[in-house]
Amino acid sequence: MNQNHHDCALIALDWGTSSLRCYRYDGSGQVVERRAHPWGIMNLPAVEHGDDAQAPYRAALEAACGDWIAAAPEAALIAAGMVGSKQGWREAAYLTVPLAPDGIGRKLTEVDTGLGRSLWIIPGLLQNSALPNVMRGEETQVIGALQQQRQSELLIGLPGTHSKWVRVVEGRIEHFDTFMTGEVYGALCGHTILGRTMHKPDVPDDAAFVRGARVAQGPQGQAGVLSNIFSSRTLGLTGELAPEAQPDYLSGLLIGHEIAALKSLYPAQQAPIVLIGDAGLCRRYRLALELYGLGPVSEADAATEAGLWILARHAGLVA
Amino acid sequence: MNQNHHDCALIALDWGTSSLRCYRYDGSGQVVERRAHPWGIMNLPAVEHGDDAQAPYRAALEAACGDWIAAAPEAALIAAGMVGSKQGWREAAYLTVPLAPDGIGRKLTEVDTGLGRSLWIIPGLLQNSALPNVMRGEETQVIGALQQQRQSELLIGLPGTHSKWVRVVEGRIEHFDTFMTGEVYGALCGHTILGRTMHKPDVPDDAAFVRGARVAQGPQGQAGVLSNIFSSRTLGLTGELAPEAQPDYLSGLLIGHEIAALKSLYPAQQAPIVLIGDAGLCRRYRLALELYGLGPVSEADAATEAGLWILARHAGLVA
Repeated sequence: MNQNHHDCALIALDWGTSSLRCYRYDGSGQVVERRAHPWGIMNLPAVEHGDDAQAPYRAALEAACGDWIAAAPEAALIAAGMVGSKQGWREAAYLTVPLAPDGIGRKLTEVDTGLGRSLWIIPGLLQNSALPNVMRGEETQVIGALQQQRQSELLIGLPGTHSKWVRVVEGRIEHFDTFMTGEVYGALCGHTILGRTMHKPDVPDDAAFVRGARVAQGPQGQAGVLSNIFSSRTLGLTGELAPEAQPDYLSGLLIGHEIAALKSLYPAQQAPIVLIGDAGLCRRYRLALELYGLGPVSEADAATEAGLWILARHAGLVA
Repeated sequence: MNQNHHDCALIALDWGTSSLRCYRYDGSGQVVERRAHPWGIMNLPAVEHGDDAQAPYRAALEAACGDWIAAAPEAALIAAGMVGSKQGWREAAYLTVPLAPDGIGRKLTEVDTGLGRSLWIIPGLLQNSALPNVMRGEETQVIGALQQQRQSELLIGLPGTHSKWVRVVEGRIEHFDTFMTGEVYGALCGHTILGRTMHKPDVPDDAAFVRGARVAQGPQGQAGVLSNIFSSRTLGLTGELAPEAQPDYLSGLLIGHEIAALKSLYPAQQAPIVLIGDAGLCRRYRLALELYGLGPVSEADAATEAGLWILARHAGLVA
């Protein structure tokens, strides 16, 4: 192993809708340098490109890690996320679950970057059930989180704009569901009457959050999410819920209904739960999961970096 | 009964957030003239009013039916709707259910209009349960619809931005629930990723609507509304749902979940259902209710006009 290879065995990108994160790995799979840029696929740098639709991607990649590429002629380039969507640099077709990590790593899509090196894009996953389901980027995080686990069955949660819940059996991704909880929360706060009486608190109000989650869990939850959310307004009208408590109460209602649905999808669920995502959000999900008696719950660290390295190995891009 | 009184025994207003509707009644309670203006309480005419916060209300009322008021010195003025909210002309306090129509009619709030006549505002209703519920305006429609019914128990549905479901026993309003279905639908279409792949069809797509309602009703409905709605996007990605079918499919999902919740709130529901509201929307609700085996379903006509007259009678404003 020469010095260059040791310094930079792999350059990996987590290239999503709103950001581009870059990781440089040494030959042992350790991340030795990280960078983050706002150049998601919906926010690429403005460059003169005439008819060349690839130019903005090339420009973003070069500006983000052109120096790494130049300094490490043998390092491979791999990317996960929306860069592989129909709206991205090159569409990397969805693979159908159930699927194991090596089956994903063997199906990367090659793009000529124009920078003297190919970029290998990780496919998204499709679940071809009555209501189909898709993910793009989360599969890499799930694979990274699996490395830290030894259980034969797991339920992996990725809370966020579109929360994913992924069932893993013997290291294979078997099934997943999506909940639009984060995006619905944003739309309710920003674009319905519920937002008008709210004030954002200085610190998260866990008591209000748990109160909302308990409503979803209890007999009032029978009325469903479309009805329960109105109580964010009416409890305000009757003086029982302060404006500062309303955002977290509403969040608790929605996340509570997400976990309630999860529990009815997996009535016998006893597998350990692993959360991947923003620390504050994972803490909230843990509160709601515990309320429902689900768990044990742990959190995966650096799942994206780990997943990118593992998939590069399955693809034969690193040794 | 003099000629004037016969021509105009009552002037009644349905004064909501976005519109002001006016009705002129003869002495037998028949509406002889109708007018509609865009002067809801959030959209009052711009007038020079200095410190007089009442001036825009007075201006709207005068412009809308000042001629009626001048021509009928003995006609009373009554109003229902958001004009009686905290943000309206004068707050008409909420009354607590259960409550009968005459109990509502005896509790009107008087406003000096400055036009030589008082305006009598109908109170809203409050249900003081664990999750409180409120209505303002719908109580008048419910009372109007009751006039056409002889059953001892009824479930009255008012589909819309905030759908209401009202249980009536022996002519008393016993209980009601609110579903933010219409407003959530608007926020999802206008402000989430689901709207981006939709095209509004030229004519409502009932097949797509029923498909969505069936998802809510069937085993997939277990995943809940926050998860089901994502299928509006994923069925599009897999080519199974055309862009023109997505709006009505999503509407069917949401209304289907509303009816599913209603059915779990009233598991033994066998009372006749009466719908009040926009004809196209009532038709959709009827489709969803029939799918769930609820009914029989009928529709009430001119419920607002009838309710305003009845409450004016209970208030002693007309004979």
